[in-house]
Amino acid sequence: MSAQNTPIAPPALPRPVFIVSDGTGITAETFAHSILAQFEMRFRQIRVPFIDSVDKAYEVAQRINEMYRSEGIRPIVFTTLVDSRANEIVRNTQGLVLDMFQTFIEPLELELNLKSMHAIGRVHQNADSEAYKNRIEAINFSLAHDDGQSNKNLQSADVILVGVSRSGKTPTSLYLALQYGVKAANYPLIPDDFERQKLPSTLDQFKEKIFGLSIDPARLSEIRNERRPGSKYAALENCRYEVNEAEAMMRRQGIKWLSSTHKSIEEIATTILQEIKLERDGY
Amino acid sequence: MSAQNTPIAPPALPRPVFIVSDGTGITAETFAHSILAQFEMRFRQIRVPFIDSVDKAYEVAQRINEMYRSEGIRPIVFTTLVDSRANEIVRNTQGLVLDMFQTFIEPLELELNLKSMHAIGRVHQNADSEAYKNRIEAINFSLAHDDGQSNKNLQSADVILVGVSRSGKTPTSLYLALQYGVKAANYPLIPDDFERQKLPSTLDQFKEKIFGLSIDPARLSEIRNERRPGSKYAALENCRYEVNEAEAMMRRQGIKWLSSTHKSIEEIATTILQEIKLERDGY
Repeated sequence: MSAQNTPIAPPALPRPVFIVSDGTGITAETFAHSILAQFEMRFRQIRVPFIDSVDKAYEVAQRINEMYRSEGIRPIVFTTLVDSRANEIVRNTQGLVLDMFQTFIEPLELELNLKSMHAIGRVHQNADSEAYKNRIEAINFSLAHDDGQSNKNLQSADVILVGVSRSGKTPTSLYLALQYGVKAANYPLIPDDFERQKLPSTLDQFKEKIFGLSIDPARLSEIRNERRPGSKYAALENCRYEVNEAEAMMRRQGIKWLSSTHKSIEEIATTILQEIKLERDGY
Repeated sequence: MSAQNTPIAPPALPRPVFIVSDGTGITAETFAHSILAQFEMRFRQIRVPFIDSVDKAYEVAQRINEMYRSEGIRPIVFTTLVDSRANEIVRNTQGLVLDMFQTFIEPLELELNLKSMHAIGRVHQNADSEAYKNRIEAINFSLAHDDGQSNKNLQSADVILVGVSRSGKTPTSLYLALQYGVKAANYPLIPDDFERQKLPSTLDQFKEKIFGLSIDPARLSEIRNERRPGSKYAALENCRYEVNEAEAMMRRQGIKWLSSTHKSIEEIATTILQEIKLERDGY
């Protein structure tokens, strides 16, 4: 047989992973992602949201079985389906079904001696709930108080972030507002403040809600250079000066702070909530 | 015995629920919340993040057992601990332990015929990863293109949201950027546009990435009245006019849209990602 006739195996497709949810499936997707990250191989996540009827469950089940047939790799299927009939339909597919709902509901029903409601849509806030309104209000507050834009209503802030330009204040403020309904203002620390050796005077009365972000000067210089290449603003020497001054000021004033250099937005937000005792219910 | 001496049972405390994670525990918390929402009773969620050592695991274990002793209600414990020793320590407490990690890792190891790495911190993006940079870029983009503030670089937008003022464009744009690294611009539809019966001309060339948000006029009037009570802007009649015109325009121009009235930010974002085929990997 000539080499030409030797069948060449096609490159293996990454294994398909279905996330089947009756809601958005966002939490399930993030969760599945963190589980799969423990395996040194490639996956293809396919989020299938809003599966809130038996008909839709049949459609997904068919899709899963068909993919198995056509690709020859058994799909992994994470489900969070509250409706038992829909759940049963997906469980009966040929995929490896990991049931994120029933797996935990059963031991809880035993422990609590209470039947669960099996009701869809118990989590996401309706646009007319109080919690939802707070969240939208927090987003508007954080936007209006981004980068020291406004001194109005600072007394309603839950937290006021301070730090040099590009230390991570804005993403953190928005995340706190969106995820937790926390009203987060943020103020840049600028050379004027360092010369006066004082925090902006508008912040004096709010010291207990101030939290600082700092950052490694080399990393800061890199970030600033992407925005304004070759500027004094981005120069390593200037970044060193600003960071040193900012950290010295925070130490002097007894302000709690962390370094954002190796942290994700989620890690920064979690640490702030712990430190300023702002822990709230998730939503 | 007089009534005074009859012991009165204290009001039952809500059952404590620990979320023990070696990372932020945000996903685990949201997940636990959605499971617990299926039970008609009150819970008290206690998130314990960053449990990344055996010592910290012992501390949490002690806290769980002590709470059981002092309150007499068995705590529920959701864990996502990658380290087997730390996990074992928490599993051995007297709480009802629901292991969100090992429960799914085991069947996956069998199915994939591959050992998991049991490595902490495989999920959250480091501040220096490419994905993280994209996310920060998306946040900056969405902020700079909020409410039609800028026409610059609209060609780099992944999606452009349009809709009347207060229909939910800003929170949705920020959520898309923060959660998915999607660059979302947003443009208000205003009476000028309705008179000309046309979309803002800057948007003409980007039609395939435009997505509309609409809202029930009565709900819109309510929202606007909170901001500007008694204004013409908030009047029901005006809201009806704007919403009708906006919907007519979107229909005429073949723009996909949804009503945000009864939807959470997550539901709106998920629908948009589906409709404009922007589905990406979660992070």
